[in-house]
Amino acid sequence: MSHPADSPMAAPSPARPELFALPPGVIYLNGNSLGALPHAVVDTLDRAVREEWGQQLVGAWNTAGWVDLPRRLGDRIGERLGAAGGQMRVCDSTSINLYKLTHAALQWHPARPQVLLEAGAFPTDNYIAESLCLGRPATTVEHLSAEAISDRLSDARAESVAAVVLSHVNYRTGARVDLPRLQALAARHDVPVVWDLAHSAGVVPLALDAWGVDYAVGCGYKFLNGGPGAPAFAYVAQRRQATLQPVLPGWFGHARPFAFEATYSAASGADRLQVGTPPILSMRALETAVEVLAAVDADALWRHAIALFERLLAALEADPVFAECTVLTPRAAEQRGSQLSLEHPQAFALCRALAAEGVVADYREPGILRLGLAPLYLTLADMDRAAAMLLQILREQRWQKPQFHVRPQVT
Amino acid sequence: MSHPADSPMAAPSPARPELFALPPGVIYLNGNSLGALPHAVVDTLDRAVREEWGQQLVGAWNTAGWVDLPRRLGDRIGERLGAAGGQMRVCDSTSINLYKLTHAALQWHPARPQVLLEAGAFPTDNYIAESLCLGRPATTVEHLSAEAISDRLSDARAESVAAVVLSHVNYRTGARVDLPRLQALAARHDVPVVWDLAHSAGVVPLALDAWGVDYAVGCGYKFLNGGPGAPAFAYVAQRRQATLQPVLPGWFGHARPFAFEATYSAASGADRLQVGTPPILSMRALETAVEVLAAVDADALWRHAIALFERLLAALEADPVFAECTVLTPRAAEQRGSQLSLEHPQAFALCRALAAEGVVADYREPGILRLGLAPLYLTLADMDRAAAMLLQILREQRWQKPQFHVRPQVT
Repeated sequence: MSHPADSPMAAPSPARPELFALPPGVIYLNGNSLGALPHAVVDTLDRAVREEWGQQLVGAWNTAGWVDLPRRLGDRIGERLGAAGGQMRVCDSTSINLYKLTHAALQWHPARPQVLLEAGAFPTDNYIAESLCLGRPATTVEHLSAEAISDRLSDARAESVAAVVLSHVNYRTGARVDLPRLQALAARHDVPVVWDLAHSAGVVPLALDAWGVDYAVGCGYKFLNGGPGAPAFAYVAQRRQATLQPVLPGWFGHARPFAFEATYSAASGADRLQVGTPPILSMRALETAVEVLAAVDADALWRHAIALFERLLAALEADPVFAECTVLTPRAAEQRGSQLSLEHPQAFALCRALAAEGVVADYREPGILRLGLAPLYLTLADMDRAAAMLLQILREQRWQKPQFHVRPQVT
Repeated sequence: MSHPADSPMAAPSPARPELFALPPGVIYLNGNSLGALPHAVVDTLDRAVREEWGQQLVGAWNTAGWVDLPRRLGDRIGERLGAAGGQMRVCDSTSINLYKLTHAALQWHPARPQVLLEAGAFPTDNYIAESLCLGRPATTVEHLSAEAISDRLSDARAESVAAVVLSHVNYRTGARVDLPRLQALAARHDVPVVWDLAHSAGVVPLALDAWGVDYAVGCGYKFLNGGPGAPAFAYVAQRRQATLQPVLPGWFGHARPFAFEATYSAASGADRLQVGTPPILSMRALETAVEVLAAVDADALWRHAIALFERLLAALEADPVFAECTVLTPRAAEQRGSQLSLEHPQAFALCRALAAEGVVADYREPGILRLGLAPLYLTLADMDRAAAMLLQILREQRWQKPQFHVRPQVT
């Protein structure tokens, strides 16, 4: 099978599948849910456990540099995401970080009555924002499409908006908001936007500082490959740090944590986002995974992600049976993240039938087959094989088999 | 050196130092800060990384039982702490869990004006409670000694108390509050108490259900030996679960997490305490460590902890030079946790001088040398050696050496 991108004239692929542990024969299209294991993490963790924890014990906070890990790792991720040092920290979960930053955003304009949330966003994002709005009487929460939010920010109506919480890339459809444009619109009316970068960090090029982002959070276990439940990151632009009064004030976010002072004094800058003792083992895994990513040029990686998407979709559309599926993800690269979401009445069974053949995708309610395209370890050949398998399943109507309709606990 | 407890007539020691990785020659008196590494954790984590994450990938949420880990592990820790199933969950950090439960406690009596906090408690506990009180106009926060709190709960003044946050064992002094008595007093006036069990869980026998505790949080990395920054636990008595409206509503605490519903519906019971995706690798480490603890009878372990304390203190007090130190920890076993805190003008340098000889303790501001006594891996012989070393350092005034006055980042 020949393809222009395979030709010697094309840019060499930046994919490094050999750096990842993937079971033989598996095509893993779920790196947007849980990134694959970088081989290097195995040794890192073994060392962190046996040498640092086991031998250096509590001294490892100094000798192994544990105490600075949330900063060091935050800055390193920030580098990849276009953030100068001192603005990003690794701590807690995406949800908890969203709570901290949405709380900060809601302090900007106590009298503005509207909070705009994205209809169809990842559910936690809206639950968290709504919980914060309970403490803010006379606030109306509106759930709008990203387009409607953009409209609302385009004119004087924006003056009623207290805050916006928005995903850069939608987890279901893969649609991407024009972040720099929306951020600029919001800034014109002094509206704070809290960005959820869970589905763009590590794959879509980001320039947080250049785009004037105020607040952002994101996930360590998707395209950053930090492992199941890896800690999350939080970004606060330097100009927003001094006024951020932490809603979750903890000793690790204190100006002098080891003085154990009775009164809270926020640490300078983004350090105040930290709360409790950082989860060191998980951070060590994430740190190593981030280095694997950092060794690959971000733009080259995104070009490869585009190539994966286009190759996969072209292969699928070459067969008439694919007309059973509706493509939910925008085709234009600038309007999407790195996934292909397909609607099909039997999407759940399709997903199971694919899994039975070693093509691991995931299913999202309602009726969506989600194919995540992690460019760091997927190749164009993987796209060809995945497309061929999905087409074969569709042609044979293999989704009719009863075994593909059994629901596990996690779908 | 002979001692009654060493004699064949004494009960056999339940300590299992052979199950822990401790550097040769080190006497580790800091298990109340970071518990030692159980050997078994090395294999568990290696398997969790290579087999579960690496080979089962996202499927491990089902096949490796990841999705139930916060419940299963919560119930297992609960068992040790006298809590029937369904009331304890492992999630987030102690600080974050304290925020969730203190928020719940503050809903009981919106009109009561006082919140009582413990003067000298671990700082985060008070920072978190104070942050919540900002959202509660006309609330007065009072910092009182545990005795004064007990007094306040003893008569009609308790009717003004909206909530109390209290540590079972104080992190600096090791003093223990009479939890069942105080909880009973509070219940008489319908005052919710949020207990911080960080310094008692895994060492002091607890009976949360029998004592009528409503809310409690605790730490995974001290006497539970779960590793640096291990996730924490949170307990909500069954009778308090239905009315707990989560302040941090997340998808893992939703009644149907994988339906990705736009509206939050709290999961039944304590499951609603979960927020984001659980940190699986850290939970696996904690799970294995908890099994090591669970294999040892709780009462026998506590009796051994008492023996350690008494042996250490007796050995120290046998030498007149020990008069330089003031014993901060109550002597009576029922009034303390498992640590010996000593006040000395040169406590910091004493701590460094001990470390230079392989006796790892810690220093807490102001002027406290804290000797943590983890009965699971410490022996009476360790107490003799630690006491001999401290006495020698005092006699030689070795704390005068300049190198013992250099402050590392973490003390």
